[in-house]
This record gives sequence, structure tokens and C-alpha cells, in this order.
Amino acid sequence: MTKPFIQDLVKDMTLDEKLAQLTQLGPYYWGLDDTVDLTGPFKELNLKPQVMKNIGSVLNGIGARNVIGLQTRHLQTSRQKIPLLFMADVIHGYRTILPIPLAMGCSFDLEACERFAEIAAKESAAAGIHVTFSPMTDLVRDPRWGRVMETSGEDPYLNARVTESMVCGYQGKDLKEKGRIAACVKHFAAYGAPEGGREYNTVDMSSGVLRDFYLPAYKAAVDAGVSMVMVAFNTIDRIPASGNEQLLRGILREEWGFSGVTIADFNSVNELIPHGNAQDGREAAEKSLAAGLDIEMMSTHYLNHGADLVEQGKLDVALIDEAVVRVLELKDALGLFDNPFKDADPLVDEAAEPNTVHLQAARELGAGSVVLLKNDHETLPLKRGMKIGLAGPFATSVHVLGGWAGTEKDPAVSLHTGISNKTSEGDILTAMTNELGSMLEGIFDVEDEVEEAYHRLKDCDVILAAVGENQQDTGEGGSKTSLRLSANQEKLIWRLKDTGKKIVTIVFSGRPLELKPILAASDALLQAWFLGSESGNSLADVLFGDYNPSGRLSMSFPYTVGQIPVYYNAYQTGRPYDPNYPQVRYVTRYLDCPNDPLFCFGYGLSYSHFAYNSFAVEAAEASDQIIASIEVENTSDIAGKETVQLYIHDVSASVVRPVKELKGFRQLSLAAHEKQVVSFEITKDMLMFYGKDDQLVFEPGEFELMIGRNSSDYCSERIWIG
Amino acid sequence: MTKPFIQDLVKDMTLDEKLAQLTQLGPYYWGLDDTVDLTGPFKELNLKPQVMKNIGSVLNGIGARNVIGLQTRHLQTSRQKIPLLFMADVIHGYRTILPIPLAMGCSFDLEACERFAEIAAKESAAAGIHVTFSPMTDLVRDPRWGRVMETSGEDPYLNARVTESMVCGYQGKDLKEKGRIAACVKHFAAYGAPEGGREYNTVDMSSGVLRDFYLPAYKAAVDAGVSMVMVAFNTIDRIPASGNEQLLRGILREEWGFSGVTIADFNSVNELIPHGNAQDGREAAEKSLAAGLDIEMMSTHYLNHGADLVEQGKLDVALIDEAVVRVLELKDALGLFDNPFKDADPLVDEAAEPNTVHLQAARELGAGSVVLLKNDHETLPLKRGMKIGLAGPFATSVHVLGGWAGTEKDPAVSLHTGISNKTSEGDILTAMTNELGSMLEGIFDVEDEVEEAYHRLKDCDVILAAVGENQQDTGEGGSKTSLRLSANQEKLIWRLKDTGKKIVTIVFSGRPLELKPILAASDALLQAWFLGSESGNSLADVLFGDYNPSGRLSMSFPYTVGQIPVYYNAYQTGRPYDPNYPQVRYVTRYLDCPNDPLFCFGYGLSYSHFAYNSFAVEAAEASDQIIASIEVENTSDIAGKETVQLYIHDVSASVVRPVKELKGFRQLSLAAHEKQVVSFEITKDMLMFYGKDDQLVFEPGEFELMIGRNSSDYCSERIWIG
Repeated sequence: MTKPFIQDLVKDMTLDEKLAQLTQLGPYYWGLDDTVDLTGPFKELNLKPQVMKNIGSVLNGIGARNVIGLQTRHLQTSRQKIPLLFMADVIHGYRTILPIPLAMGCSFDLEACERFAEIAAKESAAAGIHVTFSPMTDLVRDPRWGRVMETSGEDPYLNARVTESMVCGYQGKDLKEKGRIAACVKHFAAYGAPEGGREYNTVDMSSGVLRDFYLPAYKAAVDAGVSMVMVAFNTIDRIPASGNEQLLRGILREEWGFSGVTIADFNSVNELIPHGNAQDGREAAEKSLAAGLDIEMMSTHYLNHGADLVEQGKLDVALIDEAVVRVLELKDALGLFDNPFKDADPLVDEAAEPNTVHLQAARELGAGSVVLLKNDHETLPLKRGMKIGLAGPFATSVHVLGGWAGTEKDPAVSLHTGISNKTSEGDILTAMTNELGSMLEGIFDVEDEVEEAYHRLKDCDVILAAVGENQQDTGEGGSKTSLRLSANQEKLIWRLKDTGKKIVTIVFSGRPLELKPILAASDALLQAWFLGSESGNSLADVLFGDYNPSGRLSMSFPYTVGQIPVYYNAYQTGRPYDPNYPQVRYVTRYLDCPNDPLFCFGYGLSYSHFAYNSFAVEAAEASDQIIASIEVENTSDIAGKETVQLYIHDVSASVVRPVKELKGFRQLSLAAHEKQVVSFEITKDMLMFYGKDDQLVFEPGEFELMIGRNSSDYCSERIWIG
Repeated sequence: MTKPFIQDLVKDMTLDEKLAQLTQLGPYYWGLDDTVDLTGPFKELNLKPQVMKNIGSVLNGIGARNVIGLQTRHLQTSRQKIPLLFMADVIHGYRTILPIPLAMGCSFDLEACERFAEIAAKESAAAGIHVTFSPMTDLVRDPRWGRVMETSGEDPYLNARVTESMVCGYQGKDLKEKGRIAACVKHFAAYGAPEGGREYNTVDMSSGVLRDFYLPAYKAAVDAGVSMVMVAFNTIDRIPASGNEQLLRGILREEWGFSGVTIADFNSVNELIPHGNAQDGREAAEKSLAAGLDIEMMSTHYLNHGADLVEQGKLDVALIDEAVVRVLELKDALGLFDNPFKDADPLVDEAAEPNTVHLQAARELGAGSVVLLKNDHETLPLKRGMKIGLAGPFATSVHVLGGWAGTEKDPAVSLHTGISNKTSEGDILTAMTNELGSMLEGIFDVEDEVEEAYHRLKDCDVILAAVGENQQDTGEGGSKTSLRLSANQEKLIWRLKDTGKKIVTIVFSGRPLELKPILAASDALLQAWFLGSESGNSLADVLFGDYNPSGRLSMSFPYTVGQIPVYYNAYQTGRPYDPNYPQVRYVTRYLDCPNDPLFCFGYGLSYSHFAYNSFAVEAAEASDQIIASIEVENTSDIAGKETVQLYIHDVSASVVRPVKELKGFRQLSLAAHEKQVVSFEITKDMLMFYGKDDQLVFEPGEFELMIGRNSSDYCSERIWIG
């Protein structure tokens, strides 16, 4: 069903023009004119000036004004007047910085995720961006990996739902609509599982694990109509994804029917060479084109070798043509042939002030993402008028936008500012708020400063310790072997504890950290992530109870790095640990640490209390319908939001199944003392899985249905489903 | 080619008798007589007294006298007079306890490994044992797992060679020979890769990784004629090995041609149920029998359900028959039909004194397994007459046999005793030699004792700190999340360092520990493992230079547990770290730790110094022969042993290959200032690998040949091999 005008364009193209259409470069390459000496990166890429006239797309935003300029010049020189596609990494907001995606995952709020993407799309679109390299839906189990901050967590079901919502939020119903941009789901496939949590390291797993856990969220994006798929750096079955035909043609196109555009990750076609899967650029181009990778990013092997490969009969030109058609179809879907600037709007893009509606949304999204991990003796919420001590490297810091933070035009609201906005300035005493080496990296000893902080804050009513990791330690290339707070931060918390006052520890991080060492010193513990522009206001809303915390962990928090990977949906083992017999040695366990994480998937507290009662599983007599239900009651005097979670366990099957899998959740807003019954229909698709031969099957048998407040606290019943 | 008498026996058997032949139970079950009430474990197993008359084999040694007694009684009641097979876990020696297998791997000495098995076989045979559940050749990359002590390490090639040598040492040329027993290689397959290093946890990997790394050593055992294969607890491709037809019939029997006996691990047939791969014992029996698992160990689903499965047409009786034939053939190969007691000899088995020849061998094997990790300023060897300070929980301990230690009849020689045997007692001062909680578990603070030790030892000429982990923390069920020495031990070493005297740290452990925290405090560092009966003498030989240390690490020692897995033969990545550009963020690396381990595979020092020169790669013109050679010179005044290692790297291939792979090694004994040229012929089989479709292939191309002293210190050259 390719439109005739696209068919005509492709027919009219030279092979070199086609290959240029399949190439993406950064905007700085367009400075070239025919007289310039080719040096540096230009020479490295063997880039000839005339080829720039036919390049298909541009990597990373340069602002509305420049997009309009570059597009205008391009259309003047492009023989066929094919507009450039502008793509960029808009990971959690463009101008208004929103919570990091891992925090969004913890909201368990799909409307919020859609809103998140809508806001990012609007601002990006105004900046001239047509495609964002988001959502990143890589399933993650290893917090050593820096990029866990960019994904929604460890669960295939939650990741899939979050991804759908984001795709919908970016793309809307029609990409031509104002304020919509195309989404590019990434990184296909299983980039979230680098060995040892070490960035760019080998990924290895069986196809069963790939299908059980890692593929579902990408597939959900495809089913939701995502425009593009970014191919991962890593290997799958010892073959780099960027040259992996089985993955890109077999699974993505043939099995899932994806008809959109695939794109390499930065330089990943070229990286087939260091991977040792291609001897040179020519072989890399051959493998990637054969595999079905449409756009080469930031390397030029398609350009330099594609024509030769076709001429030598190594590659069917039809493969190139179909890739070009897909790229042109995306440009058409975005309306670029009619309106090559789409929504680029320098007035909006260059506004002096950020958009207040978006900021308000950022504040709400942030508050909804915070996870309350501990709250002994109702330490929180704080009461207005309290004398508040505020210490630690994140107390006054504005470096809380989180990695990959859009334009960073406007500083974030610090915690201190957020609190000051709610209470009189005089009620806040700060101490040891230095952010640099001494505290975050823990290079210098800070004994004296810690003592000083102790004395300065000891008469406060409550002390907030704002601690965490440098945001630069997160994101791409941010792999770490230690997940502990710096020794100086741990010291500070413990010394503050000596005051005898309530200690509220607030953790700023892009990953689950090891919080056990400071758990006992903290009366309350709040996981603050990096919440973006409105960080301090979001946190203050939670701290003072203006927002009753509702976040739930979408990734397990380990006791110790030595316990990794630890995640809730592990396969059943032959010798499960039985907590009733803790002394038995010959079961699956560690000698020095529990099997369970410190805080499990789905865990999170509220200022309200919720009781679960009347769990029931009912099978209708007349039909196959099975309904599991439970009554949830807010037993407290405070209105609050509870996330009711449905897990299912397939007790026995032709392949070993996980001990439980999230298959549904429902967020309830319950007024004080309100009750509500939540029902889940158990459908066959919840019970299906990929069997021995990678085929989706349903096997009748016993299933355990669980409904509860998190992955380790629930009611359950076993039922035969035939 | 089944012998007629075996065919006749099988023809004459009832189905129940066949199933009993395929069942292994512990010796305590034979107490039954027909009048006894069936309670406890008997009832659990649904064991009827009459069935005991036909059981095929007995688990774990009970001594020559009891074996003779039980066999005699059995033959009186067995209708067909089929002798029992006695099998046992003889892991590193029976009466004479030899170094743990991981230490043996570090010897890189294949003759020593054969001798190791020969000694164990002789003593076991005299105790009436017919089969040992050894060698364990599971490849390991995770020192959190307790059973790394039972295997030879992280390398497929080394593990394969060690395994062959051990099979040969146990079995000799003819199992009927006196002093020979059958070997049972384990655990098929990939039991060494439980996720998180947590015992009995899920194993998951692609078939490429399975074939590249995990399978070769089992195959080497099969090729060496191993009699039995023990099937693992874990899953392969989400199917427990014990019910995995693809593994047991497809790979083991059809592809490798194994015609010996397979046996379950303890209760592993039954564990298909908790694994969720069988609904009940009946399904477990069906799956395991269908998969080709011959002997069920310590569960009785074959007995209880096998006949029914055959009658219902669920299982072909031919599958049972062939398993019975294999069991009877093993009994025949051992000569049991003629001599059912084989070498059982109460006089030898119950000798008051251990065998001195064997003890001498244990001492030599031990010395050859110790790895010298650091030796600044020639701190070692010690000189006789020095005043020696000796501190730490392993200073005087006899609990150094290592886990799974045979009979434990005789205490081990402690380090203190070993040293005393070489020097006058008055030259040794000890301090803080307490083994219990305070030191090893670090439960109590020992500030005062540490101070006392400091003062007591501060005037010695040299101080030895004998530290490590409790041997109970190693072996099966010995998984740990922390690999550090207890805090009290680290404190002790650092305080002793304050004396200004040379500190020799001696580490007793069954796994690589995290030694970075005490590395700078140690002038010399010796990895002592658990060396068995002669531990102290072996160590004293090394410490005083009577044995010049020659051990090389067969498993990488990590900087930190957060770096795991870290091993030398990792796959190439697309963004390798370049040590010349340490500040580049976007390469595979951690922000806070090197990629390399603290001590790499193949690493180990000697009191001699060896220089490598004249590396050459020569391709013969007339033939395909390629020879890589190097000259090794002992540049010191001390005779020593050097292990010259050959690594090969396939630069580019159809699947990603490891950065290097050990493909050969040679141990040289070089007199002071002696030179020797070592040559390796590069053969095609060194260059082959399993390609995309699990087929063994050779792909012409560029290869890097490396010869050197360890996996990160070598000479190299690239060559095209067609």
C-alpha cells in the first residue's frame, strides 16, 4: 500500500541517494561546502560534500530556528526535495524536565506516563524535533547499570503498559497533529541485561528468558503503533543486534509485523567491527542491511559500501528500497512533505519563561513518583511550623534534573527551595550542604564538618538528610560496582541520629542504592529519584502531606550488591527456601543474606493505611469467566491512593515458570475510611507463555492467583483452569 | 554388543526389578525387614521391604566392612544375584585428604591431577567404593557460589584437561584393576552458573555460551571414557536437566556418543515437582526416564510409577531396558559379577595410621597448588632462624581439610605445626589464633586482642597473618554475598602492618576472596586454599622455599563482589575499553572499578624470575603447519617452574568470539639461568567453534596468537589462517 508518490520517488533515486536517505548524521556535518577540506570526522566517515544533499535524517535537536534554517537550505539543494527528519534524545522532557523514567515507572500511573510523553512531545515539536528516541523499555535487573534510570523497571507487564502509554502520549492518533512526534522504542533487544551491569557488555540469555521477560515491552510498543525501533548495541545469541537478522527480520518484522523504521544506535553498525562480527565496514554494512536495519546512525558504511555490495551481487537492492520506502513513509506520516518544519516554532522554543502548565504537571508527576520506603511512628508528614534541619549534599542542590535532561535551560527547584515555599524561611536550618568531592565521592574525611552539623541541627524538631549519588554517575556510561552512599554521607546520617531527633533520609539517585547501612538510622526513608525541574516542590508536597505518597517500586532494592540480580519474578527452583526452616543449608539461599531484596517490587507506603479483605476467586458456571476480587479499605483518616496488584503463578508447566508474574494492577483513590472492591477478570492471555519451541501456548492446570499490596504481601488461592 | 548374560538377566527381570535396579538409596534403608513398620523416610518414599532386595546401588561410603556385609546379605536375598554398586562422594581424597579441586586446578599440573585421582581411588576402593561422584568439572565465574571449591576453575580448556587426567587417575585402563574405581563426571550441565552465585538457583544462557564455555569439559570426560555422568539440579533452557531430553539424549548420547550410566543428583528427579516442571512423582518419573536419566537417586518415583507408566502406554519399556543394561554393564566392567566386593579390604580401610606415601603425595600436591600473589622485596622465602610471628584464625587451626573431606579420620597438619617442623619451636611466636566467632564471623569487636597481638609480635623478624574463611562457608550450600575477610581479620592485618615488619598474608579459602582491602598491608600474599591432610607442611615448604611456588590462578580474583562476573575469556564488545584513554566514558567500563580482576586467570609468582624472548610465529611453506614459539629464561639464581600459556583470539567470525581463549600450556622446570624454547603447533581444532547453528566450524581469517605468563601478560602476533 505504498503511496504512488513515494514509489515514484524511490524509482527516481540513484543508489547513492537511497543510501544517503538511510544515513543519519549530527547537524554539525551540514556546515560542509564543496570547497572545505575534508578533515577530522568528515574524513573518518569518508563523507563527500555532495552526499550531504541527500542525507535522510539529523541526530539530536538544535532548536527550532536552526531546524528551520537547515531544512530550508536542505530543500534548496536536495534534488528530490525530500525533507530531513530531525530526531533527538528526549528522554524525560525537553524544556520542562520531568521525572526520570524509572521514577515514572514507580508511579504505576499510566495516565501520568501518557501525560509525561505529551508534555515532552509538545515542547520537542516546537523545537523542530520529529522523532524522540524514547521510550526506552529495556527490562532491568541490575542496578549497577547506569541506564536503569531511563527505563521503567524490572517487570515485563509494567514496562509494556508504561511503554504503550508513552507511545500514545508522544504520537497521539495522528503524527501530523500539532504537538505530536514519532516515538522510537529502544533498545531492541535486551540491552538492559549487560553482564555485570557493565555498560556495553555482552548480553546473553536463552530464547525462553528473552521471550518471557525481555521482549514483551518492545512488542507492546509495536502493538501500540510505535513509529520506530532502535536497535541495541549488544549481542543476542552472540550476534550483535545491529547485524542480527533473526532478531530484526525474524522476530520484529515477520513475527510481530512491524512495518516502521529501524535505526542503529550511535555508531552501532560500525561496532560490528570491534565486536568481531565484521572484518570491515563493508561487511558491517552487508550484515546490517541484510538484517533489516534501515537507518545507520553516525557511521557511513551504507554510504561507502552499499552500492558496491549491490553491484557485486552481495545484496539485493530490494532490501535497500524497502528501507527507503519505510523512511519516506515516516516522513509522510509526519506530514513533512507538505510541512517540512512541522511544529517548529522559535517563539515557543525560545520563550524566556518555561511553560507553567507543564511545570505544574512536572510537579505532580514528581510527587506521584516518590516512594515512601519507611515511616516509623508517623515521622512524616512534617507539620508546618516545625523547626526543620536540612543537611546533606542534595539539601540545596539544583543538580537533580537527572541525566539526559533535555535542554537544561532552567535550574531545578532545590529541596531547600521547595520546603521554603511551604514554611517560613526561618524554620529551616541547613548544614553540610556541600555537594562536591568530600560528600558525594567521599574522597576527604569530613569528621569536623559532621560534628558541626550535629551541633547545628541538634535542637531541630526533625532532621532531613538529603543524600544520594551524583547524577553524573547515572545514565549511559554510568556503571558502578558499589551501590552504597559515600562513607561520608553514611557517617553524617548516623551522627545526626545521635541527636535523638527524628531523621528523614531522602535519597536522590537514578538507581536502587544499598540502603541497608542507613536504614536503622532513618525514621523515615523517601526515595526521591531525580524528579526534574520541579524536584523540590514535588518533594515538599510529599513531605508536608500535600501529596499523600503513592509511588511503588518498579525495581527491587537489594540488601547488597553481592545479591544482584535480585528481582521478584524469578523462576521456580528445585529447592526453594522455606522461611519456616531458616537453618536448612541445602536450599537455594545465601549464608549471609536473605534471598529477598530489602524492598521488593511493588512496595511503597502511604500516609493512609489500607486493609485487604474478602479475597475471592469465582468461576462463573455458564462461561469460562474467572474473577478474582478483593475489598480494599482505607482504615485511616487520610485520603490516599493504593495500587492493588494482581500476580499469577503457573504451578506446573512444560517449562519452568516464574514464582509469580504481575498481570494487572488498579490504582484506587480512597477517601478516609472508604472501601472499594477491586475485581480482575483472569483471561487466557494472562496465562499464556512461550513454550519449548518459542510458540505461545496455554496449558491447562493449576494456577495461583494473588492480589495484594506488593509482590510479597498478598492473599492467594490456587485454582484449576482448563 | 551387550553381553548375552546381561541380555538374559534383563529378559528375566520383572518390570519392578528393573525399576529397582535404576534406584539408588542410602545404606540406612537396608535395615528393613518385612515386619518393620514403615515410617518416616521409608513411608515418604513409599518403600516396601521386598523392593530393597532388588535395589541397584547404594549412596555414600560406609566402609569396607559394612560394604562386604551389606553386599553379602544382598546377594543372599537378590533373586538374580545382581551385586549392589557402591557409590560415594570422594571429592578430594578419601582417607588422605588432598587439596580441594580448585587448588588442583591452580597447579596447572596434569600429572598431579592424575595422581590426585589415583590416590583417592586406591583408598576408596579399599573402602569398598566402586564409583566416585568426581570429577566435578562445572565451569565457574562466580566466587559467591560455594561449590567453586569443587571444580578446577573458569576455563573450558583447563577444566577439560584436568577432568581427563582425573578420569584417567580414577579409572586407569581397566576398572577391574585393583585400586581403580569408576568416575562420574558432574553436574551435567552448567551447574556452575547459578544466578547470583546462589546455590540451586536458575541457570540460564544461550546455547552458544553453553557450547563455547560450559560443555567442553564434560565432553572431555566422555571422550576420556568416563563411566558415569551426574545430571545437574539446574534448568537448561527452562527445563530441569533431570528431565531434559535435549540435553541427556540429544547432546550427551546422540551427539557425543556417551554409552555409560547417567544418574540423578540427590533427589533431583523429585525436584521436577518444586521446579514446576512436573505435577507429581508420576510425571517426574515419566520425564526423567524419557529424557534418558538412568538412575534415580534418593527418590523413588521410578519405583512407584514406572510400571504404571509402561502399562498405560506412556513410556516405552525399551527405555527402561536400555537404562538397566547400562547399569549392569557398569557392574560388569567393574568385575562385580565375579568379585562383588572388588577391592574392599577392612585391613587397609581401618588401618590405624594413614598411608605415608599418600601423605607425602598430598604434601607435594598441596605445595604445587599454592599461588603466590605478591612478594615485594623478596619477603619470601623465609629464612630459617628468623623470629616468626604467627597470628590469625588459621595460624594453629586444623580445620583446613576443606569441605567434602572424605573420612576426616585424621586431623590436618596446621600451619603452626608445618612451620615448627622446619624451625625451632622457640622461633615462633603466636597471637590471636582463636578461630571462632570473633575472628571469622567478626561478630564481636576485638580491639583489645588486636592491640595485644601487635605488642606481642612487634619485635619479630617477619609476621605471618593466617586469615581466610570458615571452611564451612564453602562447598554445597555455601553461597555468600560478601567475599571480604571478616572486618576483624582486616583490622588485625592492618594493625600488624603498623609494626613496620614484613607482613606475609596467607589466605585460607575455598574461593577467590576480595583481597584488595588488605593488599597494601601485605608485603607478600599467598593463596593457601584448603590443602587437606598435609596443609601446614605444604605451606611451610613454600614459605621456606623448599618448594618454589608454581601455582597459577585458574579463577580470576575480583576487586570487589560488585564486579562479578569477571573472567578472562569474555566476548568482544562493540566498545572495548582502551587503557590509553582512561577518561573516555562511553566504552564498556565501570566508573569506580577496573574491568580487569585484581589477579587474573593464569597469574602466579615464583621465587624465580622468568624472561620471555624471541616470540615467533612460523608457517611452514610446504604444509599447513603453524608453529608459535617463545624462549623462556630463568633469569634468577633459583630453580623454578614456569607455566607457559598459549591463548588464541579469533578476530572476526560469524558469531562474536572471546577476546582470548587458553588453547595450550606447558610447564617448564628451569634451573637457575636456564633457557628453553617452547613451541606450540597451532592446529585447526584450536580454531574451531560452534557457529550459529550449533555446528562446529572452522572459519578462515585473522587470528591473534598470544604466548605468555598469564592471561594479561604475553607476546602476540596476528596471522591469517586459511
